[in-house]
Amino acid sequence: MSTFTPQSPDYVERVQESFSRQEALSSLGAELAHVGPGTVEIQFPFDQRWTQQHGFLHAGIVSTVLDSACGYAAFSLMPAEAAVLSVEFKINLLAPARGETFRARGSVIRPGRTITVCGGEAEATAGGKTTTIATMQATIMAIFDRPEVQG
Amino acid sequence: MSTFTPQSPDYVERVQESFSRQEALSSLGAELAHVGPGTVEIQFPFDQRWTQQHGFLHAGIVSTVLDSACGYAAFSLMPAEAAVLSVEFKINLLAPARGETFRARGSVIRPGRTITVCGGEAEATAGGKTTTIATMQATIMAIFDRPEVQG
Amino acid sequence: MSTFTPQSPDYVERVQESFSRQEALSSLGAELAHVGPGTVEIQFPFDQRWTQQHGFLHAGIVSTVLDSACGYAAFSLMPAEAAVLSVEFKINLLAPARGETFRARGSVIRPGRTITVCGGEAEATAGGKTTTIATMQATIMAIFDRPEVQG
Amino acid sequence: MSTFTPQSPDYVERVQESFSRQEALSSLGAELAHVGPGTVEIQFPFDQRWTQQHGFLHAGIVSTVLDSACGYAAFSLMPAEAAVLSVEFKINLLAPARGETFRARGSVIRPGRTITVCGGEAEATAGGKTTTIATMQATIMAIFDRPEVQG
Repeated sequence: MSTFTPQSPDYVERVQESFSRQEALSSLGAELAHVGPGTVEIQFPFDQRWTQQHGFLHAGIVSTVLDSACGYAAFSLMPAEAAVLSVEFKINLLAPARGETFRARGSVIRPGRTITVCGGEAEATAGGKTTTIATMQATIMAIFDRPEVQG
Repeated sequence: MSTFTPQSPDYVERVQESFSRQEALSSLGAELAHVGPGTVEIQFPFDQRWTQQHGFLHAGIVSTVLDSACGYAAFSLMPAEAAVLSVEFKINLLAPARGETFRARGSVIRPGRTITVCGGEAEATAGGKTTTIATMQATIMAIFDRPEVQG
Repeated sequence: MSTFTPQSPDYVERVQESFSRQEALSSLGAELAHVGPGTVEIQFPFDQRWTQQHGFLHAGIVSTVLDSACGYAAFSLMPAEAAVLSVEFKINLLAPARGETFRARGSVIRPGRTITVCGGEAEATAGGKTTTIATMQATIMAIFDRPEVQG
Repeated sequence: MSTFTPQSPDYVERVQESFSRQEALSSLGAELAHVGPGTVEIQFPFDQRWTQQHGFLHAGIVSTVLDSACGYAAFSLMPAEAAVLSVEFKINLLAPARGETFRARGSVIRPGRTITVCGGEAEATAGGKTTTIATMQATIMAIFDRPEVQG
């Protein structure tokens, strides 16, 4: 993994502030577990309300948290005036999303002025055993000068 | 669009039954709007609880419904003994997910015994105007003989 | 399909000129079959030299032409001073790439000032029968003011 | 990275034999640089004939080699009677593909009886400096009992 230098000294606070405005994440009980330069981890619990037909967490819910982890990993390296938007992501589901707790990790693969490419990985922990359940590749964009899109 | 012939005469009921077991979809207020051979539409409302930091629906929530629409489009063409799982999907976010109501449409591009490839499209309707907000390409798998994975 | 209005009146010539500089495409015997506003078709022959281990055209060769079709579909709607680059693409292989002739079609799904999203489809024709062999979703970027990247 | 145990003791020879039948790879001057359990590296030279309009290697050519590296990484863990096919892949282009030599590395992220998920990375080396130019996420399938698809 490369080491990245944030452009904004208060990148941790900026991620925390934006994260706190994501109602989708608080609705899922998700919490920021780690913020570093170009890497963000989010943990979230199992909740019966977010299951699919077989009783596992829905792949889209795993995507929701992974996309946020990737977006904030990119955001942590952006200048202070940038907002962050996902252009696209691709996720492979590797194992059923069952467990008591889950963790999504987003990491910048290549930062850019406009486009940042990230990789993401989600894990489930059940009975003390941790399994990788999904892997993501995401394209994130820095947005400037669009008043309705901040942070 | 091709026309497909379902292998199971009660494919509509099978989709409805599996859909009804998805707590994630009922938590989002999502409803089956249409089930045809190889095509499924799901509608869902805007809800502040599923928004990201700019006040739009979170891309992952749009993915949740689109992935389900693609999965059930594939499932509608599978034999009665098959269960359905998403292998992977890729989504491009085309426009901010703002609106009063949303609709996700999944369509089979190519059915297969094991692997079915689907395309998906999500629309937002605001003030009577409908905008395409996302497009998905998904790989769905038929699962046989796995007791914990039914429907 | 939407109808798009090109920003540059000589968009056909611009696509042709850029296409003619792609040595990879001429090495594959690929030819521009159609250029419209937001849509481009490229045809190419079967060639034993581009086969994979089962004797089908290699998926990457199909990707090469599909990516170009998507890129030029996007380019056809860009302003005259823009150059075009692929950010990313995702391809599903639907059927073995066997046949005498092949055709790749790229279509703009959503144009944008910086980012344009395209869909692509490749077909094989063998003995008068045409089969869809691949489907692509691609993210294309307009590049400005980078001297080494023109057209 | 996990460590994987090949099911077939002659997995290296099986990869080499299948690789040697890929005319697309020999047409590109590609060579197997490394075969391990669940990981394969392929090197290939710059060639003017495979360039796009800006003089870089075409993204599709990079994809061709990366897809093969991922496919053979998966193949190295499959049983002796399996053949290998790509279901889909997604590639992000990180930097222009310029350099004298290139290397594509495919690694198994999660092996499976039917579906194996791989990650891939391509590098360019120019004047002694190596840059990562692309990252791939690929879904590979084991095929059994299909006479026209061997190896």
